[in-house]
Amino acid sequence: MPELRRDPIAGRWVIIATDRAKRPADFVRQPIEVRGAANCPFCESREFKTPPEVLSYRTQGRPNEPGWSLRVIPNKFPALRIEGDLTRQGDGMYDKMNGVGAHEVLIESPSHDLSLGDLSEKQVEDLFWAYRDRIADLRKDKRLRYIILFKNHGEAAGASLEHTHSQLIALPVVPKRALEEIDGARKYYDFKERCVWCDVIRQELDSGARIVMESDHMVAVAPYAPRFPFETWILPKVHCSHFENSEIATVQNLGAMTRVLVRKMEKVLERPPYNLMVHTAPVQDPAMPHFHWHMEVIPKLTKVAGFEWGTGFYINPTPPEEAAAFLREARV
Amino acid sequence: MPELRRDPIAGRWVIIATDRAKRPADFVRQPIEVRGAANCPFCESREFKTPPEVLSYRTQGRPNEPGWSLRVIPNKFPALRIEGDLTRQGDGMYDKMNGVGAHEVLIESPSHDLSLGDLSEKQVEDLFWAYRDRIADLRKDKRLRYIILFKNHGEAAGASLEHTHSQLIALPVVPKRALEEIDGARKYYDFKERCVWCDVIRQELDSGARIVMESDHMVAVAPYAPRFPFETWILPKVHCSHFENSEIATVQNLGAMTRVLVRKMEKVLERPPYNLMVHTAPVQDPAMPHFHWHMEVIPKLTKVAGFEWGTGFYINPTPPEEAAAFLREARV
Repeated sequence: MPELRRDPIAGRWVIIATDRAKRPADFVRQPIEVRGAANCPFCESREFKTPPEVLSYRTQGRPNEPGWSLRVIPNKFPALRIEGDLTRQGDGMYDKMNGVGAHEVLIESPSHDLSLGDLSEKQVEDLFWAYRDRIADLRKDKRLRYIILFKNHGEAAGASLEHTHSQLIALPVVPKRALEEIDGARKYYDFKERCVWCDVIRQELDSGARIVMESDHMVAVAPYAPRFPFETWILPKVHCSHFENSEIATVQNLGAMTRVLVRKMEKVLERPPYNLMVHTAPVQDPAMPHFHWHMEVIPKLTKVAGFEWGTGFYINPTPPEEAAAFLREARV
Repeated sequence: MPELRRDPIAGRWVIIATDRAKRPADFVRQPIEVRGAANCPFCESREFKTPPEVLSYRTQGRPNEPGWSLRVIPNKFPALRIEGDLTRQGDGMYDKMNGVGAHEVLIESPSHDLSLGDLSEKQVEDLFWAYRDRIADLRKDKRLRYIILFKNHGEAAGASLEHTHSQLIALPVVPKRALEEIDGARKYYDFKERCVWCDVIRQELDSGARIVMESDHMVAVAPYAPRFPFETWILPKVHCSHFENSEIATVQNLGAMTRVLVRKMEKVLERPPYNLMVHTAPVQDPAMPHFHWHMEVIPKLTKVAGFEWGTGFYINPTPPEEAAAFLREARV
């Protein structure tokens, strides 16, 4: 019998279609191919091919020269621009504003041929330190209300360049999905006076069935009502609404756990395309007792079609308990 | 300057990235290839290969025999099943219920090699009559609260069989996306005492900039804040919340307009994969002054990536005014 499950935060129902339970081998493989570094603008010594960097971690050299281990640059084709006024305005019954914001690329390694899972713990950790450093800088601009870190790995997941990188977009509005999570979590908090993610962590650690990994400060779980097969969340164990306010050990644990999770997914699902997103509280808002920052990792194994677009309802052929077991047991 | 636009119903903001305005030729083509009828279970004379039909329009033959022009069958691998009890229950802090519902396939033509746009006006119209007939039957089951019609055309849009068909899923809950539309529209109605879609139709017909087509009873428009390039909505001009209560002339107009819209998209975008969805009011609810049924057609031209998944915010490289002009001017 298929099962309907409700995500306790977003209020979204999903269909866990257990009858056609899919094992990793059932998914069409779309392995990532390396197409070569010949013209890659993200490679070391091609710094002149990108806009000037806004941040780099380096042991030698001056800005925009070789010697870096991580480099942050403005996106050459930004979806939003930092210059100009918001000018909110009507257009008859409609609302619009100028596309003010920031769109940056975080190049995670000078080397072309490594994936995130191939990097050292320190290098993966640095991605999150760079995110924190960029938030600290960007939030000074009071027009910017929400800053998301995301990674598209592989063409099917939307990546247009293969050199390992993440992106950051700073928005002048709090996006719908973030608002929904915050509102859903606030309703739970109003009723229980507890953070819903804190409760999720407690219940998941008690049961263990959906736990992928656990460390001192972080936990990786398959959510109870996942939209996609092998969807995995990484959460800090101690409540914290703003990623940028995390303790040092938490960010260190996040780097280490992300690296292992990606390696596990690469092993179990044969190097799938994937998306990674960090959900944090709006940067201009004070600490929230009801919101708990977290990271979502979604391998791109199924196609989103008319039913999902039309309803916001997802059909997931892999129960999260099975996905968690596969990932938990994978040795990397 | 990129522009942020807000959808007046869902409250979703989109980025219209006018700087990188994309014309039809800029999109990677994924033309639909016909792979042959050799083993297709939807072809005439292979009726025995599918579960027994629940509806057919035919001039000759008995049920499950040749002689039909349209045939509705239960999905062989249903996401939901009609048998059993809902049994809503908790699972610690989580909620679940059994996957009760219906999942049916509407085979739009006995012939393997035709796409929806190749069919006659009457055949396309019949798809919508079949949807109405199935709603009339399924809504007798009071457990079923929402019935969506959708079509996935082409592999990239999620179709697993190439023979032209649509699908219908009847759900025991009103899905999130439908609730959001209904709630958004109710807020507008509470404020203005007018239906938001009626206002959209009025403003769009006045301006004309985003109109794709108009007939006596229906209008096709590019929405003001489209998530995707060439996203198009077809709406009835006269307010009506439940698709199944539409007048005869409206359904006739819908069939004719859908056929021409698909032909226009096939011409302008070189036979793209696409999704089509009908959004109607929950079947057990009375008529709603604030909800207006409509159809969305979305060609699959861009990839949804981490930013969109993480925020519910969409970056659309094609302003709707340009998309509407291309479609409006395409001669088919």
